[in-house]
Amino acid sequence: MFNRLCIIGIGLIGGSIARAARAQGLCREVVAYGREKNLLNMQLAKQLGVIDEFYTDIAAALENTDCVIVATPVGSMQVIFEQIKPYWNPETIYSDAGSTKGSVVSALEAVFGAVPDNFVPAHPIAGAERSGVDASTVDLFVNRRLILTPLENTDKQALAKIHSFWEQIGSSVSVMSVEHHDTVLAATSHLPHILAFALVGLLGRKDEQREIFKYAAGGFRDFSRIASSDPTMWQDICLANKQEIVPLIRQFQAELSKIEQLLVEDQSAQLFETFTYARNARQRFLDQQED
Amino acid sequence: MFNRLCIIGIGLIGGSIARAARAQGLCREVVAYGREKNLLNMQLAKQLGVIDEFYTDIAAALENTDCVIVATPVGSMQVIFEQIKPYWNPETIYSDAGSTKGSVVSALEAVFGAVPDNFVPAHPIAGAERSGVDASTVDLFVNRRLILTPLENTDKQALAKIHSFWEQIGSSVSVMSVEHHDTVLAATSHLPHILAFALVGLLGRKDEQREIFKYAAGGFRDFSRIASSDPTMWQDICLANKQEIVPLIRQFQAELSKIEQLLVEDQSAQLFETFTYARNARQRFLDQQED
Repeated sequence: MFNRLCIIGIGLIGGSIARAARAQGLCREVVAYGREKNLLNMQLAKQLGVIDEFYTDIAAALENTDCVIVATPVGSMQVIFEQIKPYWNPETIYSDAGSTKGSVVSALEAVFGAVPDNFVPAHPIAGAERSGVDASTVDLFVNRRLILTPLENTDKQALAKIHSFWEQIGSSVSVMSVEHHDTVLAATSHLPHILAFALVGLLGRKDEQREIFKYAAGGFRDFSRIASSDPTMWQDICLANKQEIVPLIRQFQAELSKIEQLLVEDQSAQLFETFTYARNARQRFLDQQED
Repeated sequence: MFNRLCIIGIGLIGGSIARAARAQGLCREVVAYGREKNLLNMQLAKQLGVIDEFYTDIAAALENTDCVIVATPVGSMQVIFEQIKPYWNPETIYSDAGSTKGSVVSALEAVFGAVPDNFVPAHPIAGAERSGVDASTVDLFVNRRLILTPLENTDKQALAKIHSFWEQIGSSVSVMSVEHHDTVLAATSHLPHILAFALVGLLGRKDEQREIFKYAAGGFRDFSRIASSDPTMWQDICLANKQEIVPLIRQFQAELSKIEQLLVEDQSAQLFETFTYARNARQRFLDQQED
């Protein structure tokens, strides 16, 4: 599919993309670009066989490159787009793996005036409790969802190629608007992460005072699992998507206050209804996962 | 250990206690007591071989019974204690499996004036997303925690016997005060369940409007798992322990508001600290589970 794939940001996600692309024969060679401070990490990536070569010189990295995927935190993308800009090639396809899409589009607009038609915004939805290229795997994206959020002007062939790239990696590809993506992810991923961080933080301070983690059972283990997520990545995602997240936090607070009120007023029938609705909603969620 | 064990409330928990007691040879026979409306359920229990016999007549159920375990929702226990009261036997050991302990103690005080010294309050911490005697298993409590909350006047031999009973079933037994139990469980179990119910309810209504569950990933699945819990049981637990839960909800809301403020003010360093603290706290929790 591609002669030379360049990954910018060779961490868990970038490394896994590199591994998957090679395993599926989707590129003849894969290289990485990073700054001086990323040198050790890129050396490790080459050592692990994740990439063929790495560069701290952007021009050398992009030479003869027909596909570039930016897999850094979304907060750092504008600076990267600035670096690529002088070398931007209309024949090359550019894409990303950012967890939010609105902020990526804004960054491109800030640098280029408009989103270039050969940039295909993408988001592979993959678990990331671990981090770093040494945690990357060839199958991180297999049977996972990949969301593309093309703009009106996105080149149809570039879109088709990136669509096919990810399908061949084994992902289930969906297409939606930038706004819908950010709204959906805020609700199903960003807010739950924030709730988990808040709960585990609160209980962490209580545990320091009196032992409580010792008696926490399986329910807490599952619920809190996402609080083990990488803080750098999540600070980045939350800030990038705060426009969607902040209203959601407020809606959640309202929901929680309602339940608190039902408790205070001993409204057992309404509590039962609330919990039953949630249980049924979860079943609906599980049923949809089997699609 | 016991000649005749009587379980009041032969559902998931009561049924599993019966199965485990029989499997470990902890009683010669096990019977159930319930009301007319529980008849079909008790017939099923007998059919499944979970119990030897069942009764809707409390006197017959308690005849020659040397151990009684109340395994109904805590909200129904006071009525049950009233029923047992005329037949209360100082030679019999009484215990329960209620998810809250303060409310059980209050119910006993209301019926008897003080907690009888042959009642040993107990709480087996076991997952209950399923319900009913047909979901009961012989190993539900194996390698799970069992908390005993004896009062000052609790008979030492009765306590030792119940302690041994649960150890032989395979549980890891801890002893703590009623208050500490309810505080710890409010933080590690009750609040997380309420948060999950609130989130899944909120998202459920959004999903009805526009498809969002379809794109929810593994993190949401884990986080929301406890929202599949039995609504009857949880309405019961939350009301019984609301004195501990309501303040916790407020503390959680304060925590969430803090994070919301950090987002609004783009306080990235503090967000990073908050998320890092939570991640480390979770690691502390995981480390303690290996004890």
